[in-house]
Amino acid sequence: MKILIYLISFIFFCAPGFAENKENTNGTMEKKVKMILDLDTGIDDALALAYALADPKIELIGIVASYGNVTTEKSAVNSLNILNLLHRKDIPVYIGADKALNKEDVFTVLDISKHIHGENGVGNVKIPESPRTAEKQSGVDFMIESAKKYGKDLYIVAVGPSTNLTEAIRKEPELKNMVGKVVIMGGALIVKGNVSLVAEANIHQDPFAANELFISGTPLTMVGLDVTLRTLLTKKETRLWRELGTVSGKIFADMVDFYIEAYNKSTHELKGCGLHDPLAVAVAVHPELVKVLTLHMQVGTDEKDWGRTVAITEKLNDPDPNVSVCVDVKVDDFMKFFMDHLTALFKAN
Amino acid sequence: MKILIYLISFIFFCAPGFAENKENTNGTMEKKVKMILDLDTGIDDALALAYALADPKIELIGIVASYGNVTTEKSAVNSLNILNLLHRKDIPVYIGADKALNKEDVFTVLDISKHIHGENGVGNVKIPESPRTAEKQSGVDFMIESAKKYGKDLYIVAVGPSTNLTEAIRKEPELKNMVGKVVIMGGALIVKGNVSLVAEANIHQDPFAANELFISGTPLTMVGLDVTLRTLLTKKETRLWRELGTVSGKIFADMVDFYIEAYNKSTHELKGCGLHDPLAVAVAVHPELVKVLTLHMQVGTDEKDWGRTVAITEKLNDPDPNVSVCVDVKVDDFMKFFMDHLTALFKAN
Repeated sequence: MKILIYLISFIFFCAPGFAENKENTNGTMEKKVKMILDLDTGIDDALALAYALADPKIELIGIVASYGNVTTEKSAVNSLNILNLLHRKDIPVYIGADKALNKEDVFTVLDISKHIHGENGVGNVKIPESPRTAEKQSGVDFMIESAKKYGKDLYIVAVGPSTNLTEAIRKEPELKNMVGKVVIMGGALIVKGNVSLVAEANIHQDPFAANELFISGTPLTMVGLDVTLRTLLTKKETRLWRELGTVSGKIFADMVDFYIEAYNKSTHELKGCGLHDPLAVAVAVHPELVKVLTLHMQVGTDEKDWGRTVAITEKLNDPDPNVSVCVDVKVDDFMKFFMDHLTALFKAN
Repeated sequence: MKILIYLISFIFFCAPGFAENKENTNGTMEKKVKMILDLDTGIDDALALAYALADPKIELIGIVASYGNVTTEKSAVNSLNILNLLHRKDIPVYIGADKALNKEDVFTVLDISKHIHGENGVGNVKIPESPRTAEKQSGVDFMIESAKKYGKDLYIVAVGPSTNLTEAIRKEPELKNMVGKVVIMGGALIVKGNVSLVAEANIHQDPFAANELFISGTPLTMVGLDVTLRTLLTKKETRLWRELGTVSGKIFADMVDFYIEAYNKSTHELKGCGLHDPLAVAVAVHPELVKVLTLHMQVGTDEKDWGRTVAITEKLNDPDPNVSVCVDVKVDDFMKFFMDHLTALFKAN
C-alpha cells in the first residue's frame, strides 16, 4: 500500500505545473457558500441568477445591481422580477453604481446591448412585476457588511462592470483578503474582444475600475471570452424548458431564444449563444471545470488599448500572481450542470 | 503489479487536460535530431546557433538565412562568421527570402533592430570573416529536400519571419506532415507585443506568411514573448564567458553585453535581455521545459490588428488544434541548459 501512496505522490508531484484551482472542493463544498451576485441584468445575467438559485452548493444571499446591459435601475427591477418568478422573494436586491469610475456622464445603454438583450434587458419578454423594490442600503455597503459577517464563506461573483467591486475595495481595502473568492465575468486573454478587437463588453464599460481591481492584488478568477465562448446554448436546449409547461420554463425559453437569435445575427459562426454569466457562477463553486493561467494582469485604459485584459510583461516572473485566468473549460461537464440545475428549477416554478 | 498499471493509467487519464507536449523524449531523443535553423542573424539568433551546436540532442544540418534583424545577405554572412568562429565549417548556409510575402518593396532594417542588434547585427562586434560563402541551392529548396530525406527526424526551427517556411509549404504542401517538428520564435498571446501593442517583431515583419502558416494546419510550436521574456540573461552570465579567456567567449560576451545594454535602455524594468531565439531551439528538443495551450490560431493582417497572434474564437471548440502556444517555461531548467551548453562550447573555442 505504501508503494501506491508514494507512487501517487510522485505522479502528482511530477504532474504538469499548470496552476490548477488547488482547493479540494470535496471538503469545502459540503456546506453551501454564501454568494453575492453583481448583475447588470440582461439575459445571461438572468441565467446566472437562476443558476445560483438552482445549484445546491450555493446560498444566494443578495444581488447588487449594476449598469451595463441595462441601466442600474432596470437591472434591479429585472432581478426582482426574476426572483419573484422563481418564488424567491427572500433574496434582497441592492442598488450599485450607475456609471463607470472616472466618468462624469450618465450611463446610457449601447445599441449592441439592446440588440443582444432587448430594450428591456430580458429579450423584450414580459415578466410579471415583482411587488418588491430594492433595499435602501447601498450595494457596496452590503458587500462590505457581508464580507465582515461571513469572511471566507462569502463568494462575490460580478458579471457586469467591475465598478461596485472596486468601490467596495476602495472603501474597505481589507475586503480583498476577507472573502473566500472573487470571480468576475469579463475580459479576453487569448481571443479577440467582442466590442472591439481587444476588449470584452464588461471590461470595456469601466477599464479603470477593472485595472484598479486587477492590480490591487485581490485574488481573482477571470472568466472571460476565452472560456465563455466555448459554452454555447442552442434552441435544442431551450425547447426542453418550453416543453416543461411551466411559467418560468416558458419565460426563460422566450428570453434565451431572443438571445440566441441575436447571436445568430451577429456571430452566426458560433452556432449558439455564449453562457458568459452562468459559467462564472458555476466556476466559483466548481473550480474543477476550468484550467487557469495565474498571472499578474492589467487592463488598458488608453484609447488604443481600451479595455484590453493582458498579462504584465515585467511581472511574468514575479511571485504570487493574483489573477487566475480561465483558459479552458470542460464544456460537457458544465453544460450538464447547467441544464440539470436549470431544468429542475424551471420544472418547479 | 497490475493494480499499479491500472492506477497509473487512471491517474494519467484523469490528469489535467492541458495540452502537454506528449512525446516521450526519453525514447525519441536518444538519437540526435536533424535540425535546420532559419535565422535573421542578430544577437539572439547567434545564441540560438551556438545553442544548436552545443546541445548534444541536436545535429545542425544547415542554416537558412532570412531578413529581419538584418538583411538576408548580412544574416548569411553573420551565420558563416559565427560557424567559422566556433570551428564548424561543415555546416552549410543557404539563402532564403529577402522580404515579406505580398511586399513589393525591398526590405530595410528597422531602426529598433539596429538599436537592439547593432548596425552589423552582432552588436557592432568585429567577428573574424569566414572564408566560406553561402550555398547555391535556395534555402526553401534545402528545407524541402531535407524534409524528403529525413522525414520525422527533421526539426525546423525558424526564429525570424515565417516567410521561408510558408514558401516551402506553398511549394511542397506535404512538408507540414513530413517533418518531425516545426518550431517558431514569434508572436505574443498573453502579453503585449514588442513592436506594437499587439505585435511581436518576427510576426510583424510578415503577418501574411505567419497567418498562412498558422491556418495551414501545420503542427507548430509557437515560442513567443509569453515565454521568451521570462528567460532573461544578465552581465553576470556574460562575465563567465569572458573569464573563459577564449576567442569565442570574449566575442559572445561582447555581443550579448551590447544586447543587454540595448534592453536596459528600452525595457529597463525587465532587468536582462530576452533569450528569444535560443529558447525556441531548446524547446524543440526539450519540450518538457514549457507548458502549452493548443489552439487554432490566426494572425492579424489589417492595420488595427497587424501581426497579432490570437486564437480563432469560432474554432475554440474545434478538434485537433495545430498550434501549441508556449505560455509558461521552467526558467531555471532552461537557464541551466543554456549556460552549461554554451559555456562548454565557448570554453572549447
